[in-house]
Amino acid sequence: MSYATYFQENREQHLAELKEWLSIPSISALSEHKPDMLRAAEWLAATLTRAGLENVKVNETAGHPIVTADHLHAPGKPTVLVYGHYDVQPVDPLNLWETPPFEPTIRGDKLFARGATDDKGQVFLHIKAVEAILKQEGSLPVNIKFCIEGEEEISSANLPGFLEANSEALAADAVLISDTSLLERGKPAISTGLRGLCSLEIAINTANTDLHSGSFGGGVPNALHAMVELLATLHDRDGKVLVDGFYDDVLPLSEEMRAEFVKQDFNEQQLQSDLGLEALHGEEGYSFVERVGARPTLELNGVYGGFQGEGTKTVIPKEAHAKITCRLVADQNPQDVLDKIITHLEAVKPNGAKLTITPGEKARAFNIDPSGELLQKAADAYAAVYGTRALFTKDGGSIPIVEEFSRVIAPTVVLMGFGLPDENLHAPNEHFNLENFDKGMLTIVEFLNQV
Amino acid sequence: MSYATYFQENREQHLAELKEWLSIPSISALSEHKPDMLRAAEWLAATLTRAGLENVKVNETAGHPIVTADHLHAPGKPTVLVYGHYDVQPVDPLNLWETPPFEPTIRGDKLFARGATDDKGQVFLHIKAVEAILKQEGSLPVNIKFCIEGEEEISSANLPGFLEANSEALAADAVLISDTSLLERGKPAISTGLRGLCSLEIAINTANTDLHSGSFGGGVPNALHAMVELLATLHDRDGKVLVDGFYDDVLPLSEEMRAEFVKQDFNEQQLQSDLGLEALHGEEGYSFVERVGARPTLELNGVYGGFQGEGTKTVIPKEAHAKITCRLVADQNPQDVLDKIITHLEAVKPNGAKLTITPGEKARAFNIDPSGELLQKAADAYAAVYGTRALFTKDGGSIPIVEEFSRVIAPTVVLMGFGLPDENLHAPNEHFNLENFDKGMLTIVEFLNQV
Repeated sequence: MSYATYFQENREQHLAELKEWLSIPSISALSEHKPDMLRAAEWLAATLTRAGLENVKVNETAGHPIVTADHLHAPGKPTVLVYGHYDVQPVDPLNLWETPPFEPTIRGDKLFARGATDDKGQVFLHIKAVEAILKQEGSLPVNIKFCIEGEEEISSANLPGFLEANSEALAADAVLISDTSLLERGKPAISTGLRGLCSLEIAINTANTDLHSGSFGGGVPNALHAMVELLATLHDRDGKVLVDGFYDDVLPLSEEMRAEFVKQDFNEQQLQSDLGLEALHGEEGYSFVERVGARPTLELNGVYGGFQGEGTKTVIPKEAHAKITCRLVADQNPQDVLDKIITHLEAVKPNGAKLTITPGEKARAFNIDPSGELLQKAADAYAAVYGTRALFTKDGGSIPIVEEFSRVIAPTVVLMGFGLPDENLHAPNEHFNLENFDKGMLTIVEFLNQV
Repeated sequence: MSYATYFQENREQHLAELKEWLSIPSISALSEHKPDMLRAAEWLAATLTRAGLENVKVNETAGHPIVTADHLHAPGKPTVLVYGHYDVQPVDPLNLWETPPFEPTIRGDKLFARGATDDKGQVFLHIKAVEAILKQEGSLPVNIKFCIEGEEEISSANLPGFLEANSEALAADAVLISDTSLLERGKPAISTGLRGLCSLEIAINTANTDLHSGSFGGGVPNALHAMVELLATLHDRDGKVLVDGFYDDVLPLSEEMRAEFVKQDFNEQQLQSDLGLEALHGEEGYSFVERVGARPTLELNGVYGGFQGEGTKTVIPKEAHAKITCRLVADQNPQDVLDKIITHLEAVKPNGAKLTITPGEKARAFNIDPSGELLQKAADAYAAVYGTRALFTKDGGSIPIVEEFSRVIAPTVVLMGFGLPDENLHAPNEHFNLENFDKGMLTIVEFLNQV
């Protein structure tokens, strides 16, 4: 039977399986979910085995396990390594979820759950595509390997070491990853660039105790005033980053790159209205897709200090905190950017404030030339299923490990995404559009058959 | 027997009673403590009755009850109305308390509990002083009234109406309040000024959902960036408030006032070291006591938005919040100051930010001439017990109702405080020094006998 018929006949069973996986709260950032991480990895291993993969292993690491498997029975054919992740983002604010994040629910044509699109849902497509070919044909047209980790949302601390230690076992001609998005419904895209990332936390301490704002207000430092004063030096009113040297290794946008961005025909009005925004916002002289695809950014992800409860508390807080991540592009070196930010913060440190800076994650940006053979074949596979050839884009997100894969495993990394940009990844009510669940499996089968 | 002996003999019993009161978590700001508020009021009423007061009533209000009592058997003598409050501040951060806030504990010569010094402990002194005179003499040298409220920490919403509705029943020649502090150990003070207060909350909303910082970072407004940008416009680096017209109704410091402040011989070095501060901080050209006693201030009491958990979350928050209180002096009108702040905030509103401002509490500053007879007698009473006459000071805190009392009940308001400035009021590990517990009761007895 045709693959379309096969997937249709097995659709209910496939969705039931995926829901089972999504119901495991595999939040890698929160230590209390360590047992759930193991359960999610073991679920994955069992499902790979049932699909017909071989050498399925749950590999322990210093953090969360990495699941590997392979099927190497196509001599003379290329080897494709599928990468993805089974860990998910935290879920707060929990009260904004319409249905609980770990009780997967289909509403309309969408599957709602934390991890539905980022990235369990997309990893699942590859397993079921391989299973389908094996069931229909008895063999695979390529050699295939899986390497699925549990620390992508916390910067893949243990994967680089694992790749280097197992570079022979994981050797491949290309790496295939589904952790990105279509441009919009019916408009597929292959990302040829991902932003890098670095993160840091700032703590400001003033007095050794919270103080009464009547007895002390106006005469002692207030940790929140100091934090606000410090953070306000980081951007101008347009969001341009004011840290000295921040843009040093950013390439100016060439006319060719600008032309490629224009091709996306991105509807800024629609985005603004979808997000309920009064206005889009960002560096002057750039469109939205340019700002997100080709410009670095420094975002405050969390700021807090003092009283947050109901009513008023006339307190001068003794401490304040900020969490920051930067998205990096082109040749920006994460360590160099962190050093520059730290130098900046120490130079503008407010009077009476004790400053503690804790650097966090680091990842370089990734870029690939779209004219390579496999990227062209991937675009063709989309064309066969979606009726529209995939565009080559630059994506604003970071998959910190992609640059590592391109260096250690294979220069060719195919970012074949099946999400949509409005699927609330990292936010309440994350979901996955089932249209791309269906077409995603067909596109992967098509691609593997063309490689 | 002497009053000193009487209080010594009853000390254990008195402390046991006070601990009982302090163990009731009468946090007026938190609605879940409404039953505790009633328990605390009823405990007070029972204790006033046992002390020999008459007409003891727990008066219902639209908020928390007001407890009144009197003893009017000294014809031809003045009437003194004692005001105080039985409500307390919230207790977070709870983990910083060495012993739980509502399990009163004596360590060394200090009684630790929320409300120990602000204000249950100080109200208690008046009850026990009156009880002592009645037990020792059988009658009181003055007519006395009590009016103890449960909403001081939330701006006394219902007391002004109560005073106005009951102005005859509460009529008095002077109002006596113990809710302030000695300057330092052994250095008593009578406050002749209190700062006023106004408060507001700011909410900033941007998108209708939290957004992924990879897919959107650099291209959409970030509620935290907007909040930081907004709040940073409120002060210069010294803490001077930059709101247009904020200082319009503030009197410049006269040479006489400056001389009075100098008399306090305040040790700024000591304060800095006690609070573990790198530096004191405030408007240029003013000493600490001038900044706190005679200058207004605008304090951030709480700021929050985005991710506050363990680890990293690459989110662009859709909302951010700030809680602000101002301390006001001289003729500053709280509503006028609020209006000016709101005008300022709306004028500097960042691009793409929806701004919601919720005004809160309002109270005028209070000032009294120290040369009046009763204030002089109060200073003498301290001299008799402490061996040092009380200094007349300006206090940085606000007791929003004092100005109301001086207008509705009696122009003479005697602020006879027995706290110490480092007793952590409004902070973890609030406590009351028992030296002033003992001397406080004696001073009140001395004062009532001299009136």
